[in-house]
Amino acid sequence: MIEQRVCIVGLGLMGGSLAQALAGQARWLAGVEAHAATRQRALADGIFDLVTDDLAEGLRTADFVILATPVHAILNILTDLPQVKPEGCLVLDLGSTKEAICTAMSELPQSFGALGGHPMCGKETAGYSAGTPALFAGQTFVLCRTERSTPAVEAAAAALVAQIGAQPLFLDAQRHDDLVAAVSHLPYVLSAVLMQRAAQKGDERLWQVSASGFRDSSRLAGSDPRMMRDILQTNKTAVLAALAAYQQDLAQFTALLQADDDLALAQWLSAAQRAHAQYRKEKEGRGKTEPG
Amino acid sequence: MIEQRVCIVGLGLMGGSLAQALAGQARWLAGVEAHAATRQRALADGIFDLVTDDLAEGLRTADFVILATPVHAILNILTDLPQVKPEGCLVLDLGSTKEAICTAMSELPQSFGALGGHPMCGKETAGYSAGTPALFAGQTFVLCRTERSTPAVEAAAAALVAQIGAQPLFLDAQRHDDLVAAVSHLPYVLSAVLMQRAAQKGDERLWQVSASGFRDSSRLAGSDPRMMRDILQTNKTAVLAALAAYQQDLAQFTALLQADDDLALAQWLSAAQRAHAQYRKEKEGRGKTEPG
Repeated sequence: MIEQRVCIVGLGLMGGSLAQALAGQARWLAGVEAHAATRQRALADGIFDLVTDDLAEGLRTADFVILATPVHAILNILTDLPQVKPEGCLVLDLGSTKEAICTAMSELPQSFGALGGHPMCGKETAGYSAGTPALFAGQTFVLCRTERSTPAVEAAAAALVAQIGAQPLFLDAQRHDDLVAAVSHLPYVLSAVLMQRAAQKGDERLWQVSASGFRDSSRLAGSDPRMMRDILQTNKTAVLAALAAYQQDLAQFTALLQADDDLALAQWLSAAQRAHAQYRKEKEGRGKTEPG
Repeated sequence: MIEQRVCIVGLGLMGGSLAQALAGQARWLAGVEAHAATRQRALADGIFDLVTDDLAEGLRTADFVILATPVHAILNILTDLPQVKPEGCLVLDLGSTKEAICTAMSELPQSFGALGGHPMCGKETAGYSAGTPALFAGQTFVLCRTERSTPAVEAAAAALVAQIGAQPLFLDAQRHDDLVAAVSHLPYVLSAVLMQRAAQKGDERLWQVSASGFRDSSRLAGSDPRMMRDILQTNKTAVLAALAAYQQDLAQFTALLQADDDLALAQWLSAAQRAHAQYRKEKEGRGKTEPG
């Protein structure tokens, strides 16, 4: 049970799933959402005490606000928060990049307790109606301390993470951003380039000869463009570094293939398979299930 | 029902799945396999009339041979075939690249009828024990004519494709190789580079913050190295061309991200999402299920 009066700002896949996971488990639950159709669906679900498009109204009696919009909107709300809620409250976010958000959180007045958050889960379909209360179960929920981290906000975040069945992992914001650049943002860029390159081929038989390999490799290209723009812009340094390293590796592989060196090629391919097996072993060793 | 006496050479995932799909549906069914453990499993399944490690023995009374080994082994067998089976037979293969194989098939004596084949399906797990008779159901089965294509081998291949529930698609071998470079071999290389780059990062928290996006993007890196070496070497020209175009696109995206051009970035991300949606629509419009 969450003791606070919770307000979730942004009822997309993440905010909506969180609301469903907290249904009946929070003393009071409000949702702030700009889209009328989403508000209607949320109201129809009957799990909210209040659904509104007005941030001030949603926050008025709340004491634990969870920011679940794309990153730029989170940054804007953090800027407005001292005026909207001068008495302060506990703040947690679910944004995909953490350094910019944690810096903004650190600049909040001392009446706020604030912690950066990033549940490491997702789905290929966006939006409230794609939400599911099981989205977070067994998944890592990264928490990043800020200069406004207090025992109260850490306890509230810990209770929330436990309630939705996730595993908390405290990480420095910069380290988080560097790691997700490697395992999330770079894979998105690779997938989006692959998808556009294939589409430009313009051969009517192309999709007929494509199978599950292309399906999985191109899945991330379907990600929400607004969310991805915010992510790439607020994690630009780490993403550019990951891209530079990747381009170097890709050029090296190209040279290897060109060189007709059987043994070196065989070793490279085996190393890739071994690295993949090791990664799967470490993931499965944790006994976690991953969402489809 | 397959009227011929069928011999499948190579009982890995593809050959084994084909044998299971043909079980009880061929007049006679033999398997040729080098690994003793696989031969034992195949014998225990009770679906073969003969299982042997001797190519000549497997082919002696067969009149329809299906080559289901990695590509280089297929090429070697095609070289030996005129001596092993001087009276000729029908030949189909399941190799992942087609130009080299179809060229070799075209050089067979006139007593042979030969057609290149490539069922567009696969699985992340290799080997006979990963085989399933449903592997081909609803999938595209590419067929490539050679100078040894005869009505007899085309009829035999058509009957086989229908028996296993696949959809035949006749394609020129060069066009096939160019298309699979774009939707299969390039995605493999991207995945293998991504996997090795991530593994080299050496941060103990990396896998904990990785989620389904990385899982799907890295899946192809786990492919069998021997199979992939044969594929990359026999489709080197098309793969290198695909890599060159991809590297150019990736460099262009990098420049776009560096340039801080909000609008251009937003357009690029939206184009990727649209291309993905279009591709999914065309795949799903065909009402086909894809293997996991």
